[in-house]
Amino acid sequence: MQTSGREFSLIERYFRQQASPDASVVLGIGDDCALIMPTPGMQQAISIDTSIADRHFPADAPPYLIGRRVLNVSLSDLAAMGATPRWFTLALALVEADDDWLAGFAGGLFSAAEAGDIRLIGGDTTRAGQLVISTQVQGELPPGTALTRAGAQAGEHIYVTGPLGLAAAGLALYRQQRDGPQALVNAYLDPQPQLATGHRLRGLAGSCIDISDGLLADLGHILAASAVGAELDLAAVPLDEQAIRLFGYRQALQWALTGGDDYQLCFTSRLDRAALAARGIEGVCRIGQINQADGLVFVNRPADLTITSTGFDHFA
Amino acid sequence: MQTSGREFSLIERYFRQQASPDASVVLGIGDDCALIMPTPGMQQAISIDTSIADRHFPADAPPYLIGRRVLNVSLSDLAAMGATPRWFTLALALVEADDDWLAGFAGGLFSAAEAGDIRLIGGDTTRAGQLVISTQVQGELPPGTALTRAGAQAGEHIYVTGPLGLAAAGLALYRQQRDGPQALVNAYLDPQPQLATGHRLRGLAGSCIDISDGLLADLGHILAASAVGAELDLAAVPLDEQAIRLFGYRQALQWALTGGDDYQLCFTSRLDRAALAARGIEGVCRIGQINQADGLVFVNRPADLTITSTGFDHFA
Repeated sequence: MQTSGREFSLIERYFRQQASPDASVVLGIGDDCALIMPTPGMQQAISIDTSIADRHFPADAPPYLIGRRVLNVSLSDLAAMGATPRWFTLALALVEADDDWLAGFAGGLFSAAEAGDIRLIGGDTTRAGQLVISTQVQGELPPGTALTRAGAQAGEHIYVTGPLGLAAAGLALYRQQRDGPQALVNAYLDPQPQLATGHRLRGLAGSCIDISDGLLADLGHILAASAVGAELDLAAVPLDEQAIRLFGYRQALQWALTGGDDYQLCFTSRLDRAALAARGIEGVCRIGQINQADGLVFVNRPADLTITSTGFDHFA
Repeated sequence: MQTSGREFSLIERYFRQQASPDASVVLGIGDDCALIMPTPGMQQAISIDTSIADRHFPADAPPYLIGRRVLNVSLSDLAAMGATPRWFTLALALVEADDDWLAGFAGGLFSAAEAGDIRLIGGDTTRAGQLVISTQVQGELPPGTALTRAGAQAGEHIYVTGPLGLAAAGLALYRQQRDGPQALVNAYLDPQPQLATGHRLRGLAGSCIDISDGLLADLGHILAASAVGAELDLAAVPLDEQAIRLFGYRQALQWALTGGDDYQLCFTSRLDRAALAARGIEGVCRIGQINQADGLVFVNRPADLTITSTGFDHFA
């Protein structure tokens, strides 16, 4: 942890408190580097994610939820690989050092860390004109078991782990300051990484990705990386009943396809739903099939639905 | 690497090009996570650092030097632990996606990566109101060999690996747009991590830190972590002749003590200079001694020198 002057006491106060020690952490926060002892024979999965106020989350959101969100979004990348979370670091650029905000943020961060069984080992706190938060997560898994984007094969079913489009609906409600089901707003503000499902999918899924940019964009990444095509049954894409009731079917489907931020997993497998359920993977929806053709073909596309975008482009 | 839309092609273009492949990188940029295979039996040293435009480097500095600087500053943390650099990630928040800037930045980043023998395995590119760059570096070292801040013992000599205060002098020249020796400006804009020296110090140094906040602040971290005191001989602190000539002895000494950004190492050891030189550690300066008393005592303090600050405080 880079530490000096008042900054040092900030970090001491809010980030050194985490409860669960772990024998793998040889040296935690407070030196030039943290030291960890990897588990013998395991590969490591590593991902870094940046969240920026009013771009990736509302700046006025409760700091507790911002803390949970930034870590859970990173943990979702470990879930998508089937990795077991182990260690993370935090780079926090703050506009000001506000005690209440930091206490809330740290509380949320550690609640997500405890749920994900991952330990904070270091970080860097700086001052910036804008709140910018990067988290790097590190997980472990046996060699050869990682779920990648590149393993999809013709004939595999395409699944998603839960209903899509909720986060986009929740963001619309939040922005409009409309009353609406808290479940939708929570889907956006407090997404849950599918760690248990990702873990169980090791050896069962040909490919896997987490849905951060929207189903079309993220399934598109699988198709491109695997050099395959797919048939996507739009009538099979699981939506949320409340989102349909509030915004209509077309909008709910559009959000499911391009809204992003749902953090469900999209994966491919030769196994049918019954065979997956027998292995502890329940509640998934089959939405299509991988084939050898190029590109993505839609089945059951409503005549009046225009698919305008394939996802969120940070530089659009 | 988080990738979507135009952002994807940016990252593809500038950051997938690195030359040297490495068998430890099972899966590099382009999936939800990178996958690495750690070296059996080795510990890992991990550090994350954030650099912000016009706070940690001039926003108008050549992008090639910004790219070099952000990685070299992180590598300095590995040097301070005696770790061998292995893998790094990059979180890049850009104000705009400018081709020339990105090409220069990537060129500098990879030149530092090649010199440090470290591989880029992933990252995240986002848009922000300000240029914010976080790098996380990961190194390896045998268990029990890490140089920490906590191992200084009474009787050990205190050393620094080179002259101090150059970076602060260089920053003053850069800000004043004064003509001056390029070596001073380079000391600020293009600092060099002391990786080889850090590596050789394993087993020879009781404690070690890199001088990022200024000698007094960083030596202070060693004293606090080791629960020891020290006698610091101000006449022995190595300064730069050109800095003295341009700014005077008092200013040069003040910068050496509190200026920061020099990225030399400060370490403690029972060995004298000849014994260190016999082990390949040459050109270091003895500046004092660790003792059992509390705090830091100055020897040869000029009567007219006021030491006003113990270092750089990001929230001061």
